[in-house]
Amino acid sequence: MDSSKSVRGETSIKIPESNSGKHKSIGAAKVGASVGGGGWQRGVSIFDFILRVCALAAALGATAAMGTTNQRLPFFTQFSQFQASYNDLPAFTFFVVANAITSGYLVLSLPFSIVAIVRPHAAALKLLLLIFDTLMVAFTTAGAAAAAAIVYLAHNGNSNTNWLAICQQFNNFCQRVSGAVVASFIAALILIFLVVLSATALRSH
Amino acid sequence: MDSSKSVRGETSIKIPESNSGKHKSIGAAKVGASVGGGGWQRGVSIFDFILRVCALAAALGATAAMGTTNQRLPFFTQFSQFQASYNDLPAFTFFVVANAITSGYLVLSLPFSIVAIVRPHAAALKLLLLIFDTLMVAFTTAGAAAAAAIVYLAHNGNSNTNWLAICQQFNNFCQRVSGAVVASFIAALILIFLVVLSATALRSH
Repeated sequence: MDSSKSVRGETSIKIPESNSGKHKSIGAAKVGASVGGGGWQRGVSIFDFILRVCALAAALGATAAMGTTNQRLPFFTQFSQFQASYNDLPAFTFFVVANAITSGYLVLSLPFSIVAIVRPHAAALKLLLLIFDTLMVAFTTAGAAAAAAIVYLAHNGNSNTNWLAICQQFNNFCQRVSGAVVASFIAALILIFLVVLSATALRSH
Repeated sequence: MDSSKSVRGETSIKIPESNSGKHKSIGAAKVGASVGGGGWQRGVSIFDFILRVCALAAALGATAAMGTTNQRLPFFTQFSQFQASYNDLPAFTFFVVANAITSGYLVLSLPFSIVAIVRPHAAALKLLLLIFDTLMVAFTTAGAAAAAAIVYLAHNGNSNTNWLAICQQFNNFCQRVSGAVVASFIAALILIFLVVLSATALRSH
């Protein structure tokens, strides 16, 4: 009993010497699992926060670009309406809703990301962010892919189904919509990277 | 030295008594981190394998249903072709490719899932599966959403863009395509669940 106690005492003295005095050492097992991991975990959390802000910017940009697009034509065509906006096509409406929800989630997740920076060993928090990030990956990708399919059709048309390209008439509309789709795919890519980053951080806990 | 050796010997004798003789105890720290976790990890890995087989069935079904759909019309219409197949629309071609790649990945991942059952503490393997699962979530969802946008258009048409519904003519085609899209969304949902499951398993390592 005495010899084991002396060994424990030696370990707790050694910790401040090895430049890892920042994280609290509760037990010998915990210290063994996370030696040198505190700084790395914090770095990953800071990177996570920065990426989250970038994804928010991309998702907000996509929502705004699609939501405010509204082209009124100066001349008469065969269309009954002379105006093109996102709510003419259900896929574009879904795109706006999906990107708005992703933006909202990303805003709400920022405080949690800050908590993860302050407390690098909060594994449950990282797991929660990872789960919701994965859901948002699927959601954002679905919105972007649905809109991309319709934008492709608007640009090129389809002779097999007699669907004509409308981008000759609504050129400005098509360009803004294409930009919004690209921004949404960028947001989805950043979210995928966030999931991978969180998983790597969880593995080293 | 002698006293510590006797303590170690005592630990290794105790392990078979406490019904956890299956997982090998390498060090005291490792045992402390994963006490009672071996059985749970193995259960999660078995569940992971079963879900992977289900996702494979859904993705393969979606690929086959979309890939083999080919409706030849018995009467004359205004269309130049009297046949509808998946390669008439680029979104459907992408759907087939995406689901085929997902199916291929899931087949390749099955042996790794079996290794994870045999060795419940292989965290690096689980991390690798999680990363590729996340990529496949995005891929499958993109294919399913793009096809869903086109199927919606084929069913309902769009008066704003003068795109007419084609499902009156190609009713059988539309029904099979809709089924394939639903199967693909099911595969994507199972993959999302696999990611969440892997992340939960990683957290408890």
